[in-house]
Amino acid sequence: MIGVVGAGGDVTGCLESLEATPGVEKAVRISAPYKFVSKEFRKERTIIKVGRAEIGGDEFITMAGPCSVESEKQIMETAEAVAAAGATILRGGAFKPRTSPYDFQGMEGEGLKLLAKAREATGLAVITEVMSDRDVDLVAEYADILQIGARNMQNFALLKVLGRCGRPIMLKRGLSATIKELLMSAEYIVAHGNPQVMLCERGIRTFETATRNTCDISAVPVLNELTHLPVIIDPSHAAGKRSLVPALAKAAVAVGADGMIVEVHPCPEKAVSDGAQSLTIEGFREMMRTLRGYRELWKQEREAEMPLAV
Amino acid sequence: MIGVVGAGGDVTGCLESLEATPGVEKAVRISAPYKFVSKEFRKERTIIKVGRAEIGGDEFITMAGPCSVESEKQIMETAEAVAAAGATILRGGAFKPRTSPYDFQGMEGEGLKLLAKAREATGLAVITEVMSDRDVDLVAEYADILQIGARNMQNFALLKVLGRCGRPIMLKRGLSATIKELLMSAEYIVAHGNPQVMLCERGIRTFETATRNTCDISAVPVLNELTHLPVIIDPSHAAGKRSLVPALAKAAVAVGADGMIVEVHPCPEKAVSDGAQSLTIEGFREMMRTLRGYRELWKQEREAEMPLAV
Amino acid sequence: MIGVVGAGGDVTGCLESLEATPGVEKAVRISAPYKFVSKEFRKERTIIKVGRAEIGGDEFITMAGPCSVESEKQIMETAEAVAAAGATILRGGAFKPRTSPYDFQGMEGEGLKLLAKAREATGLAVITEVMSDRDVDLVAEYADILQIGARNMQNFALLKVLGRCGRPIMLKRGLSATIKELLMSAEYIVAHGNPQVMLCERGIRTFETATRNTCDISAVPVLNELTHLPVIIDPSHAAGKRSLVPALAKAAVAVGADGMIVEVHPCPEKAVSDGAQSLTIEGFREMMRTLRGYRELWKQEREAEMPLAV
Amino acid sequence: MIGVVGAGGDVTGCLESLEATPGVEKAVRISAPYKFVSKEFRKERTIIKVGRAEIGGDEFITMAGPCSVESEKQIMETAEAVAAAGATILRGGAFKPRTSPYDFQGMEGEGLKLLAKAREATGLAVITEVMSDRDVDLVAEYADILQIGARNMQNFALLKVLGRCGRPIMLKRGLSATIKELLMSAEYIVAHGNPQVMLCERGIRTFETATRNTCDISAVPVLNELTHLPVIIDPSHAAGKRSLVPALAKAAVAVGADGMIVEVHPCPEKAVSDGAQSLTIEGFREMMRTLRGYRELWKQEREAEMPLAV
Repeated sequence: MIGVVGAGGDVTGCLESLEATPGVEKAVRISAPYKFVSKEFRKERTIIKVGRAEIGGDEFITMAGPCSVESEKQIMETAEAVAAAGATILRGGAFKPRTSPYDFQGMEGEGLKLLAKAREATGLAVITEVMSDRDVDLVAEYADILQIGARNMQNFALLKVLGRCGRPIMLKRGLSATIKELLMSAEYIVAHGNPQVMLCERGIRTFETATRNTCDISAVPVLNELTHLPVIIDPSHAAGKRSLVPALAKAAVAVGADGMIVEVHPCPEKAVSDGAQSLTIEGFREMMRTLRGYRELWKQEREAEMPLAV
Repeated sequence: MIGVVGAGGDVTGCLESLEATPGVEKAVRISAPYKFVSKEFRKERTIIKVGRAEIGGDEFITMAGPCSVESEKQIMETAEAVAAAGATILRGGAFKPRTSPYDFQGMEGEGLKLLAKAREATGLAVITEVMSDRDVDLVAEYADILQIGARNMQNFALLKVLGRCGRPIMLKRGLSATIKELLMSAEYIVAHGNPQVMLCERGIRTFETATRNTCDISAVPVLNELTHLPVIIDPSHAAGKRSLVPALAKAAVAVGADGMIVEVHPCPEKAVSDGAQSLTIEGFREMMRTLRGYRELWKQEREAEMPLAV
Repeated sequence: MIGVVGAGGDVTGCLESLEATPGVEKAVRISAPYKFVSKEFRKERTIIKVGRAEIGGDEFITMAGPCSVESEKQIMETAEAVAAAGATILRGGAFKPRTSPYDFQGMEGEGLKLLAKAREATGLAVITEVMSDRDVDLVAEYADILQIGARNMQNFALLKVLGRCGRPIMLKRGLSATIKELLMSAEYIVAHGNPQVMLCERGIRTFETATRNTCDISAVPVLNELTHLPVIIDPSHAAGKRSLVPALAKAAVAVGADGMIVEVHPCPEKAVSDGAQSLTIEGFREMMRTLRGYRELWKQEREAEMPLAV
Repeated sequence: MIGVVGAGGDVTGCLESLEATPGVEKAVRISAPYKFVSKEFRKERTIIKVGRAEIGGDEFITMAGPCSVESEKQIMETAEAVAAAGATILRGGAFKPRTSPYDFQGMEGEGLKLLAKAREATGLAVITEVMSDRDVDLVAEYADILQIGARNMQNFALLKVLGRCGRPIMLKRGLSATIKELLMSAEYIVAHGNPQVMLCERGIRTFETATRNTCDISAVPVLNELTHLPVIIDPSHAAGKRSLVPALAKAAVAVGADGMIVEVHPCPEKAVSDGAQSLTIEGFREMMRTLRGYRELWKQEREAEMPLAV
């Protein structure tokens, strides 16, 4: 896969000679400011396989778990419960980006080990956040997917290192990042060598205060028009309030997202972070039951759209 | 229905003596800055009956039609097509709020007559915008529902007059209005005598430019927690782009909206306004087919939640 | 003054024949979506004379007074104090746009009479808000300038009536209106017959909560590049907090605004509205003293820029 | 300097016993979520001395130079010109945060050396951006002030390392960061050992498109009420347009900012980045001339406020 970047001008001749070059299958002119991540460059959707999950495929993938890894008991109990309810990926923060330096900063290395232990016990794959290019190797040792938080979406030094980390990346949209900027940040990772990137809409910052952020649900169909990368919704951070999460999860399925990442805690009122937006285990179970029907509808629609294979 | 408004303080004694007053069924203390529209005041959802539609009831109501009434042929053709595809209410602007004074300002009285004609021919109810308190009586003569546009959400002089117009109102959220402000504007109408108000989320203004506005889909569950009034989604103005409308409509059903208002034009590329976001008749038909399954799921969920009647 | 509006295309020939028409002095091609308000249409700045104030001229004009007219004593005392401190225009709301229907809605007609009385006593001109096209004639009878509030910036029915009201208009920018939309709303008024329009930046709505709104100070130089209309700053509504007002007022002078409108109350803690952002009389006096030096600098700069008249 | 952080509750007794401890001068209860950076903690303003500049002192400090270091000729020519016009600090990007991976990423180490060379030739201090915790030592070797860009304001891994870098920091406000979040990010740096932090308002992201960002000028007086740290304005990034820069610079002085950072290029139309917002050398010179009078006024006001020393 080779992309050529230039300063515009007439490149028709150039494309033709490229195609004539041995080993070159096809040369495509791309006009968007991103290239590898665009649908013009690659028509088939990217599918990322992690554990038993195929992100970008037929199933709606659920990543669930606590905001922060707090203790062995907490993460093991949650992992087992979310696995039983249908999640295939375990989330849990070991390195925590906190607005205040006086808030809990995460269990760090210890937290990573607990996540790995929960994976062994449950077969769930693990996603966790990495906050610094210095920690990429360490986190990649334990996690199946590296999460880049909203506040690091344009941490370009980090993005470059992710290109060489050998793990799939979930890149969260910045609090006030445009969809185009999100795609360009993804392009950084792909252009530096890692094509396994999924994008995450987690709510944008607006004037509205009834929700923590504003879930930009339109971002899903917009991204599905522009890119082949999988799109994940984070209804927990978007809403900031437990009771709104199931409705946003259903909306995510309805608009064609590939999955969601959702906060679940065995005892939200005791959570060290994000308790207000964490589902209880029972609440998560119930939500998972209602989502199935929605994905079935989505599959039927997709089949109806597809030409019959002969 | 009487509400008492005061400056806080201890009103318990006051409530008790109120309840003792003949003709007073119940006295409730309400702490929100709005009262009649809050769930604290009224637990059962408001259902607004218009033609064959029950807005706020079991069915997801579709209001469809062109942005502007342009000609008899255009409005009749559209009305018949949307009725056949399952809409029960016809939309069409006769008075048009246009950013520029040099843009088409609507057919005004002539447009109202054409809408009434389309109603006669199809049995559809009619919703159309009123922009000034001077025009309320005229528009109420022809329309079944009066629409208040986003730019007039805080036109308080108009809101007061709507309290006495005898027609249901659809109040659109302002471009940067909070949900609380939307409820207080609805409170104006109800407090001035008209309890038949539905609320419309039509996208808010943010920094994102890939869509015309940002559809605040969370507004639906938030409103369903705060108010008994029906909630309508406008996917056309939120998206500003035809291809995104069906996804947003599905999201609207999934989050529990009571209906949608959507722009349909027999020939969008020739529309005098909002062509880019208008569905073709064929596109509308297809979208309506896919929505049915989603509303069925919603009904099943609601039944599962309800206690069995004995 | 005649403007021609068309749908683009080649109009060169048309312009030439227009200029050849008797009575036509000059024909200009204008490409902005607004016309009469643009600098392309009119190079000299519009100066609006009201009482002893020339808005758009050399002096920085101060409009000061309470948010709401509350009583004869309050308005007379404030009027005398602000006049003594250097204001030339008295502000005071008689019709109040309030988010909640249960808040004080203004003294209406009675308030207008008190404003007129204060004008007689002090020689100050009067600016006050009009909220409905029905009230335009009444308000125009008492006020020297009609103020259109942010929430009515796109109340197009009202804007059209203002074209024929015979009074200068101060048009406030909507809470999330772009500068271009503000200019198009001004264009409505001018196109309907009233060229005496001034524009007011009063803060826009953003995610920041430390201030009531975000004062878009850049709007002043941007508007000064695009239009010949005077530009007024409202530091009170932008800040929402008394202690920030003097700094914003100095910024307004520094960027070249033509004036400001500022809330002053003899006893802010007892004000029925906007007390937190109202200056005391002593605070206002002090601020006025510091502003003089800034305007002197502005005048010196302007003189340095001007070619010498021969 | 010791701060104690706790979870609320009654700490009065605790404070008293702390004050009784040998070596403790004073114990203060601080309620803001930040501590060291608050005015409650330290009343006197922080003054940062760099080269011949005292940031936070009497003079309005100007940091000027190109967006990117492009060549020896370019940086030397600019440095000499801005020094001659009154700047005391040279800006110039060696590591460039670029939205697209295909845009110029900076001269990196080579650029740092050129900046150091320009310092030697002109006596200007040097400010330049650092984007990764890996580069902090390298950049600290060459630069007098380390700049943290808006996109890294919440790169907490980087902020922690800055606590130990031994250089003053200029922390830019994130594109949609609140003032409170900016202060908490500064708190990270101070709490990790580095009290020499200045804050930079560089425009926030809003819906307005006439300017690149919206200069939140109120942030200056708000910060001056909350913190003792110096506040710098970046009129270039806020405006995104050369012609608006001088007006914003004057506003910065008028509201009491401690300095500004401004882009200047000997030939803006050939700049590899940010040409549209870069002043020419002649434009910069002219702007500097007009600013002097404004700072004089500010000094006079401050003197008038100060009690006379006996």
